[in-house]
Amino acid sequence: MKLYEQLADDIERQIRRGVFRHGDRLQSVRETSQQRKISITTVVRAYLLLESRGLIVSRPQSGFFVNLRKGGRDAEAKAEPAAKPVFVSSAVDVGRLVLSTLRSISNDDAVPLGSPYPDPGTFPFDKLNRNAHAAGREVSGRGMMHALPPGDPKLIRQIARRYLDKGLAVDPAEIIITVGATEAINLSLQAVAKPGDVIAVESPTFYAMLMAVERMGMKVVEVPTHPELGMDVDALAAIAQEQPIAACMVMPNFQNPLGYQMPDDRKQALVELAERLNIPIIENGVYNELHHGERFPSTLKSFDRSGLVLHCSSFSKTLTSAYRIGWALPGRYRDQVEKLKFLNTLTTPPIPQAAIAEFLEREGYDHQLRRIRKVYAQQASLMRNVVMRFFPEGTRVSSPVGGYVLWIELPPKVDAMVLYQLALERGITIGPGHMFSVSNRYRNFIRLNFSTPWSPELEQAVLTVGKIAQNCAR
Amino acid sequence: MKLYEQLADDIERQIRRGVFRHGDRLQSVRETSQQRKISITTVVRAYLLLESRGLIVSRPQSGFFVNLRKGGRDAEAKAEPAAKPVFVSSAVDVGRLVLSTLRSISNDDAVPLGSPYPDPGTFPFDKLNRNAHAAGREVSGRGMMHALPPGDPKLIRQIARRYLDKGLAVDPAEIIITVGATEAINLSLQAVAKPGDVIAVESPTFYAMLMAVERMGMKVVEVPTHPELGMDVDALAAIAQEQPIAACMVMPNFQNPLGYQMPDDRKQALVELAERLNIPIIENGVYNELHHGERFPSTLKSFDRSGLVLHCSSFSKTLTSAYRIGWALPGRYRDQVEKLKFLNTLTTPPIPQAAIAEFLEREGYDHQLRRIRKVYAQQASLMRNVVMRFFPEGTRVSSPVGGYVLWIELPPKVDAMVLYQLALERGITIGPGHMFSVSNRYRNFIRLNFSTPWSPELEQAVLTVGKIAQNCAR
Repeated sequence: MKLYEQLADDIERQIRRGVFRHGDRLQSVRETSQQRKISITTVVRAYLLLESRGLIVSRPQSGFFVNLRKGGRDAEAKAEPAAKPVFVSSAVDVGRLVLSTLRSISNDDAVPLGSPYPDPGTFPFDKLNRNAHAAGREVSGRGMMHALPPGDPKLIRQIARRYLDKGLAVDPAEIIITVGATEAINLSLQAVAKPGDVIAVESPTFYAMLMAVERMGMKVVEVPTHPELGMDVDALAAIAQEQPIAACMVMPNFQNPLGYQMPDDRKQALVELAERLNIPIIENGVYNELHHGERFPSTLKSFDRSGLVLHCSSFSKTLTSAYRIGWALPGRYRDQVEKLKFLNTLTTPPIPQAAIAEFLEREGYDHQLRRIRKVYAQQASLMRNVVMRFFPEGTRVSSPVGGYVLWIELPPKVDAMVLYQLALERGITIGPGHMFSVSNRYRNFIRLNFSTPWSPELEQAVLTVGKIAQNCAR
Repeated sequence: MKLYEQLADDIERQIRRGVFRHGDRLQSVRETSQQRKISITTVVRAYLLLESRGLIVSRPQSGFFVNLRKGGRDAEAKAEPAAKPVFVSSAVDVGRLVLSTLRSISNDDAVPLGSPYPDPGTFPFDKLNRNAHAAGREVSGRGMMHALPPGDPKLIRQIARRYLDKGLAVDPAEIIITVGATEAINLSLQAVAKPGDVIAVESPTFYAMLMAVERMGMKVVEVPTHPELGMDVDALAAIAQEQPIAACMVMPNFQNPLGYQMPDDRKQALVELAERLNIPIIENGVYNELHHGERFPSTLKSFDRSGLVLHCSSFSKTLTSAYRIGWALPGRYRDQVEKLKFLNTLTTPPIPQAAIAEFLEREGYDHQLRRIRKVYAQQASLMRNVVMRFFPEGTRVSSPVGGYVLWIELPPKVDAMVLYQLALERGITIGPGHMFSVSNRYRNFIRLNFSTPWSPELEQAVLTVGKIAQNCAR
C-alpha cells in the first residue's frame, strides 16, 4: 500500500470514529504535510482519494470538509469502481472528476484559467435578452406543440444559411436543434452505437467526448493524435483491424485541448477510411467559428458523401452559453437522432431559439465574431509568451490556430492534480490533464484558458502557476 | 397476409416503380375506400403501415404524402423491428408513434382534444417573461460555472419550501433541476437500471414512461392497474417473483390517462413492497398540484424511509411548458442522478430557473393554482356528460379527480387509430389508446384533453368524435 493510501485510510478511520463530524474542516494540505513530515504531493493525493470515496469535499480557497451525508459513501462506492489505468478499450468514469473540478472553479474570485468556457464578456447579452423578451410574448402562447423536434424553423433556416455562406450546402430538413452541443453529441452517439461498444477518440480528447461515452456505458480507445495535424488516420485503421470500432468522435478544428486544425487532406482521408470501414464519425464543431486566421475551416461533413458524418455544434462558445442551444446534422441517422431527442428532453426550449434566430437575422453576428477572433489570437500569443518564459525548463506549449485554450506539457515530475490543488489554494484554477484521457498519460499536462481579457492580474496568475510548477518540478 | 397488408404492399410497389414521387399526395382514405371497395378501417391501417415503413407521412387536414428522402426507409427499417404484441417484458417502441401523433396535432386550427399539454391560456406568461427579462441581465454575465448541477439555489429553496408547506420535509440538497420532468425521469431510470432490465409500469401508462424505457433499451412489464385505485400491489409482488424487476415507474396521483388518486394505504403498501424487494420506485408527480378536490395528495416519497423513491416533477403543467423546468428528488440515488444530469445536458438553462424562482417567491402561484383547479374540475364534468350522452352504447368514461384528461373505453369494434385518422380529417385530434401500452390492449380506448375552456365549438368537436365513433362501432 502506498503512503498516500495509508494516509487516506488513517483519516477515513478518524472520520468513521467520529473524530471529525459532518462539515468539519480538515487541516490544510500544508499543515498536514508539515505535521506528518510527508510531501505535499502525498497529502494532496490522499485528500483526492478521500474525495473520490465521497468522504470529504473540497471548497475553493477554503479547503477540504468532511461529508457524511446520508447515502454518501456507499452509493459512491457502488457507482465508482476503482479507476483502471488501461489504455485500450477502457470503460470511462471522468464525469465525476470533471464535475467536481468545474464546481471548484465556479468561484467568482478565482482566476478562471481552468474554465472550459469563453469569457462571458464577449457575449451580446443585451441584444439577446431583448430578443428573448419579445419572443417570450409571442412564443409562449403557442404552447408546446410548436416546440416539438426538430426545432424552430426560423433558427434552422439561419443555421443552414450560415453553412451555405461557408460553402457547405446543408438541407435544412437535416438539422435538429438540441440542448447545447452536449445533447447533440449524446444523441448522435446513441444513434450509432450501443452500450459496450468501443468508440475511437483523439488522445488527448475533450472530456465532453469521454463523458458522452461514459453516459452510454461504452468504451473508448484513444487514437494517437498529432498535436498539429490531428488524429492519426493510419493508426485508426490499424486499431480498427484489431477490434470493431462502433464510431469515431473527432474535433477536427481547434481541438480542445490541442488547438490544431486538421489539414484538408487528412480530413478527407479520415472520412474515406470511415466510409470504407462503415464507421460513423461524430464531428464536434463548436469552435469552428473561432478561427484565429482568416478562413473558416473545412468540416468533415463537407467531405462526406455517404451520410456517415454526424456534425454537432452550438452557439455556446460564440453567442451565449446561458441559452444552451446546439444542433446536430446527423446525415443518414437524422430520423433516429430526432426520435432520441424527443425521448431525451422532449423539446428544446423555444424562447432562446427564437431569440438567437432573430439575432442571426439582423444583429451582426459576423461582426461580433471578427472582433472575438482578433482578441483571442492576441491573447493566445500573450499567454504563450509568459508560459514559455516563466514555466519550468522542459515545458512545451501548444500553438493553437483557433479557440481559446493552451495545452501545456510540464516536466514529468509535475503531477497536474497536485498543481491544480496548490493553485486553487492561491485562488487560481487550471484544467488538469487527467480530465482529457481515461489513461493516465496526461498527468503532467494542464489546459489554460486565455479568453479572459489580458491584465496585470491575469499575467500575475499565470506567473504564479509557473512558480508552483517550478516547485513541483524540483 | 391480411387485406390491409396487401393494400400497403400494392401501394409500396407503385411508389418503388415511380408511379408516385417524393411529395406526391396519396388518394384520401375515403377515395381509396370507394375506389377499391374496401372498408375505411382497412385503408387507414394500410396507410399507417406505410407510414411506419417510412414511405409516406401524414399531414393534418391534408392527407398522406410520399416520402422518399435519402436514408428514409432503410434507416427506419433497421431502427424499427416489427412491433411485437407481447404482454410481458416487451421491448418498447412507442417513441415514433407518439412523436408522429403529437406532430400531426400541432396544427393551430385543429381542436386539441388529443393534446397531452394544458391549455397555455392558464399560464402567467407576462409575469414570467418580465422576470426572465430581469434575470437575463443578471444571470448571463455570470457565465456557465454558476449554472452547473444541481441548479439555481433560489429555485431549489422555493421547491423545498413548497413541499414543506404540504407536509413533506425535503432536504434542499437532494433536489436536482432538470430539463422538464422528462429529463428527470430519464436520469432516474438510468441511475437505477441498465439496458435489458425489466421495468414495471402501470397499465395503461403515460407514454412518457414507456419512452424513458425505450430510450435506455430496457423492457417493460405492464402491471394490472385499477382505474380508481391504481397499480395492483399484489400483482406487482407476483410478477416480481417470476422475474427480476429493476425498477417500478408510477404516477400515483391523477395518473395520465386514468386520472385516479391512489389511496394512502395503497401507496404505503407499494412503498413497503418496494423496500422489501429492494426495487427503486420512480414517482412521476407532475399533476400533483392539479387536484380537483381540496387537498394536496400524498406522495410515495412521503412514505419512503429508505431512499428508494426517486420523485420527479416539473412546472410544465402548471406554470409554463415553454421553459422546460423540472426536478428530481432522487433519494439515495441523488449523486448518480446529479452526475448523469451533467453528462446528459451539462446544465439546465439558468434564466428560466431564475424567472420561475422569482415568480414562486412573490407572484401568487397558489392563487393561480386554485383558479386552474376549479376550472379543470368544472370542465371535466362538462366533457364527461357529453361523452356519456353522445358516444356509442357501451362506452365507459373515467372519473378523474385531478389533471385534465379523460380516458374513454369505446366498444371493441372501434379501432382508435382509425378513429384518430378520421377525426383528424375533420380537424379534431384525439389521443389513441395505442400510445399507452406496448401491448395492443387499448386499441379501443382514447384520451381526451379537457383543459381548453369550454365553448360551443369544443362541445361540437366532442360530439363529432362521438358520431365518428358511432359509425366505427357499427
